[in-house]
Amino acid sequence: MPQPNHVTALADADESTLPEDLLPYFQKCRDKLGFVPNVLRAWLVRPEKLRNFIRLYDELMLGPSGLTKLEREMIAVAVSAWNRCYYCLVAHGAAVRKLSGDPQLGEMMAFNYRVAELPPRQRAMLDFAVQLTAAPHTVTEEDRTGLRIQGFSDEDLFDITEVAGFFNYTNRVAHGLDMMPNAEYHDLARQPNPALSGAS
Amino acid sequence: MPQPNHVTALADADESTLPEDLLPYFQKCRDKLGFVPNVLRAWLVRPEKLRNFIRLYDELMLGPSGLTKLEREMIAVAVSAWNRCYYCLVAHGAAVRKLSGDPQLGEMMAFNYRVAELPPRQRAMLDFAVQLTAAPHTVTEEDRTGLRIQGFSDEDLFDITEVAGFFNYTNRVAHGLDMMPNAEYHDLARQPNPALSGAS
Amino acid sequence: MPQPNHVTALADADESTLPEDLLPYFQKCRDKLGFVPNVLRAWLVRPEKLRNFIRLYDELMLGPSGLTKLEREMIAVAVSAWNRCYYCLVAHGAAVRKLSGDPQLGEMMAFNYRVAELPPRQRAMLDFAVQLTAAPHTVTEEDRTGLRIQGFSDEDLFDITEVAGFFNYTNRVAHGLDMMPNAEYHDLARQPNPALSGAS
Amino acid sequence: MPQPNHVTALADADESTLPEDLLPYFQKCRDKLGFVPNVLRAWLVRPEKLRNFIRLYDELMLGPSGLTKLEREMIAVAVSAWNRCYYCLVAHGAAVRKLSGDPQLGEMMAFNYRVAELPPRQRAMLDFAVQLTAAPHTVTEEDRTGLRIQGFSDEDLFDITEVAGFFNYTNRVAHGLDMMPNAEYHDLARQPNPALSGAS
Amino acid sequence: MPQPNHVTALADADESTLPEDLLPYFQKCRDKLGFVPNVLRAWLVRPEKLRNFIRLYDELMLGPSGLTKLEREMIAVAVSAWNRCYYCLVAHGAAVRKLSGDPQLGEMMAFNYRVAELPPRQRAMLDFAVQLTAAPHTVTEEDRTGLRIQGFSDEDLFDITEVAGFFNYTNRVAHGLDMMPNAEYHDLARQPNPALSGAS
Amino acid sequence: MPQPNHVTALADADESTLPEDLLPYFQKCRDKLGFVPNVLRAWLVRPEKLRNFIRLYDELMLGPSGLTKLEREMIAVAVSAWNRCYYCLVAHGAAVRKLSGDPQLGEMMAFNYRVAELPPRQRAMLDFAVQLTAAPHTVTEEDRTGLRIQGFSDEDLFDITEVAGFFNYTNRVAHGLDMMPNAEYHDLARQPNPALSGAS
Repeated sequence: MPQPNHVTALADADESTLPEDLLPYFQKCRDKLGFVPNVLRAWLVRPEKLRNFIRLYDELMLGPSGLTKLEREMIAVAVSAWNRCYYCLVAHGAAVRKLSGDPQLGEMMAFNYRVAELPPRQRAMLDFAVQLTAAPHTVTEEDRTGLRIQGFSDEDLFDITEVAGFFNYTNRVAHGLDMMPNAEYHDLARQPNPALSGAS
Repeated sequence: MPQPNHVTALADADESTLPEDLLPYFQKCRDKLGFVPNVLRAWLVRPEKLRNFIRLYDELMLGPSGLTKLEREMIAVAVSAWNRCYYCLVAHGAAVRKLSGDPQLGEMMAFNYRVAELPPRQRAMLDFAVQLTAAPHTVTEEDRTGLRIQGFSDEDLFDITEVAGFFNYTNRVAHGLDMMPNAEYHDLARQPNPALSGAS
Repeated sequence: MPQPNHVTALADADESTLPEDLLPYFQKCRDKLGFVPNVLRAWLVRPEKLRNFIRLYDELMLGPSGLTKLEREMIAVAVSAWNRCYYCLVAHGAAVRKLSGDPQLGEMMAFNYRVAELPPRQRAMLDFAVQLTAAPHTVTEEDRTGLRIQGFSDEDLFDITEVAGFFNYTNRVAHGLDMMPNAEYHDLARQPNPALSGAS
Repeated sequence: MPQPNHVTALADADESTLPEDLLPYFQKCRDKLGFVPNVLRAWLVRPEKLRNFIRLYDELMLGPSGLTKLEREMIAVAVSAWNRCYYCLVAHGAAVRKLSGDPQLGEMMAFNYRVAELPPRQRAMLDFAVQLTAAPHTVTEEDRTGLRIQGFSDEDLFDITEVAGFFNYTNRVAHGLDMMPNAEYHDLARQPNPALSGAS
Repeated sequence: MPQPNHVTALADADESTLPEDLLPYFQKCRDKLGFVPNVLRAWLVRPEKLRNFIRLYDELMLGPSGLTKLEREMIAVAVSAWNRCYYCLVAHGAAVRKLSGDPQLGEMMAFNYRVAELPPRQRAMLDFAVQLTAAPHTVTEEDRTGLRIQGFSDEDLFDITEVAGFFNYTNRVAHGLDMMPNAEYHDLARQPNPALSGAS
Repeated sequence: MPQPNHVTALADADESTLPEDLLPYFQKCRDKLGFVPNVLRAWLVRPEKLRNFIRLYDELMLGPSGLTKLEREMIAVAVSAWNRCYYCLVAHGAAVRKLSGDPQLGEMMAFNYRVAELPPRQRAMLDFAVQLTAAPHTVTEEDRTGLRIQGFSDEDLFDITEVAGFFNYTNRVAHGLDMMPNAEYHDLARQPNPALSGAS
């Protein structure tokens, strides 16, 4: 039985609703990735909201931060694993594979981050993100202190918290709308890239 | 023992980091509410992210939608109740009291929305939002159909999903940073306002 | 939509079933509080049980104990928050506000007691009460030792345990019967009372 | 290694603290059962509370009710099974065996009441009691209607709810204090008693 | 109402399907126990699988190991208690009573192993087995180290893990098929056997 | 940081302990797969148990059954996803990809089987297997009836139940021992194989 290739369970919007100023952004996606990520096409049902989503996302995941882009993606995947979000596990699992050059690391984040061998700093970061996801009301000053001991600054604490929080948002948008990832993600970066090794 | 009055557990940023173009926004808060909500001051530790947050939030909660502003606030509070988020329960509980003119409705959303007497449409909306919060991976087409039967459109489904998702994000930012609500919220709209009755 | 003002989901019993010797007790409620708490009226469907309930309750919450009345109410609210009991959160949340003179403390107990700044003794007391509520089979000697280290005696351990246990009982009676709190509780003690400050 | 034979983890109180008017009650226990149940001895650390507990308990479990004594004990055991309460499973499991004459029924209630073959009325009663125990905030009018369909009256709904609630209280007292059951319970009524068969 | 005496919810297979080479095994059960355990009769619906099950089981529970037979049965019962498996609690609870000579120990394992007084080694063993049952993805090297500190070897860790894992398998077969234990187990070894005391 | 390549957290046993009669089996693995699956090497610490494990496993997953091999692997992966078992998700996820020729189906089973478009028969089969995994004590006759309605026979019910149960066993062995999958699995069958399409 062929698997679903819809964007979401809503009537798929075509790009005719795309605000004109976002046309170059969609083109850039096609140029760089070869496709427009379905999460962006999902927002076409409410196009006036798309601009805000893109800006928040790009600053969060690609903007300056004490966390590397790979670390932010690792949080994204570990959070999405807790929430069992198919879209984000496929799309951001691919990002971890690509940024780390390590396909096994991508699968570990997606299946059970606890089996990975990580520097204590990254392990603490993921433990905090997953606790905040699974049982947010239990987070206390002691948990924040655990991050500070690993060298994370106030800005870093903010960023860890915000990335973890943000994927609790997008995971739920994906679940609520039955958002399907682009097929292209499945193949991406399945081969180890030793040039990136240790780049995390 | 006096209760905490910090903004967050991070070193409280003063407004000197506030980007100049946001000064009028903060001033508008002071004019309309009498204070700047602490959630905005929390973001001062990463001021370049504040603008994105404000835009996304304002469109989501105040922009055009098939959901009334009160309905969006009801979702916000029911989600925050599941996550036991002190900040959002205080701030958005006040918003429900104010917009509905019904202080009991505010407390019902904050303690257990199931005890409220609501039109079936609103009950279905909250059931979906809380399921998406508590067990997002269990949401299926049957649940979306339940919303459509109540008359919700594709755009409405998007908005219910996004509001529920978004408060799963801000709840976790509040928990992660120990964000405290402004004291002013506690007193707000504690008296019934019959003029609003039935306005939901 | 007006919120429910029934006493319970059962046919509301009038006071004609009230045993004669309890008439003065109901009158005392009216004199002191201005109303008879609905929890007492709920029991009118089984009036012969009311006397026992009142005696147990009054000794537990108002009788001599190493715990202050405020501390017993704090346990009541923290337990009721775990169980998401609307009746008890409204009625006993009001009691915490009144006894402490601190409206924020009442809301903290009702939303997430972990955000309050409390003496270690009270924090340990609430942690024990909530563990006993949420995962009673995990309580071990180590947890009791944690209370003893804070200076609690055997009698205190008994009282903390019994108050926590008791609200697990009344929370479930309220949930099972859809018991609604008297409207008067909502307004009660919403203003800080500095005279009581530090009285806990 | 010999198993614990203390009454509770608190210093065991001797009967010198027993209020004089309760002496005949303890004597009646010895005459009828051959021993004083440890739950009563547990309360000796706070003897002034014992009288209230006994009165509430006796009315609840032995007083007039639309539920048979066996049915009340079945609720007690199914609730205690959810809470994994050793004391109550041993003591009230024995009561189910004795009142039903069916040792297997006692074990089914204590291990997993769903495996028992029960009249639909009793199954509905236990399902309600366990839902109220495990997820009290999810009980709705639909669940109460389910009981009414089985013929339960308002008074019966009250009694089912109160018995279920009450064992959530005593289970937690037992867990909180590490209360051990009297050794005599283990052997009680282990043989089928066909004379009672169908007596439920 | 008489309790169920079926083997499983499937059409009970008679022994005509029993592979000939297993006849002596069934006979040995009858000679030693007086009956063929229903778990073996359950497998008669797929007789070609029975041989494999018996071999795995017998090596696991009766073969050479650093764990005593009683310790393996204690794990079996503590795991089955978590999973609320009626069949295994009845059958292996009886085994703990018999091998230990201590009826209370059997009930403690079946109701809540945490109330038993056990040597630290056995307590660590059961804590590990129940953690592996309830939240397997949380087991880390620290937990294995906890076992090693108690003197468990690599082979012992394997055996603890495998016994715990195995009862998570058979518990689910029993739940999935509604497997009922033989009535004979209920009476077995209800009297203390001081000759075995300390034999664990 | 290179990811772990140990077999388990125990001292890795070399094949010198392998019973002689199993040598051909290991050789067959090398011939067919190119490697010996680490789950078999994990058992070398207790080599006398390996034979039983292999026999049970091979009959269960490869022997005659009303379930296809692919269906058995789909159950294996959906169960392992609930338990977040890295080893089984990698190894059996690869098997689903290979047997179905559909890489997306493999990832759906591993991340959240509910997003897959499946024939109702297979969906019912997976729902049952995951319920039996996540909340085994809630399975009732109604759930078995749901399977029968889809055309499953008694033998099929047995096989669904046993496969689901078995992976609850091996998942826990993998978690308990920190078993790592062979690196070769990660690449396996990542390309769609249309020749197999519809083969499930």
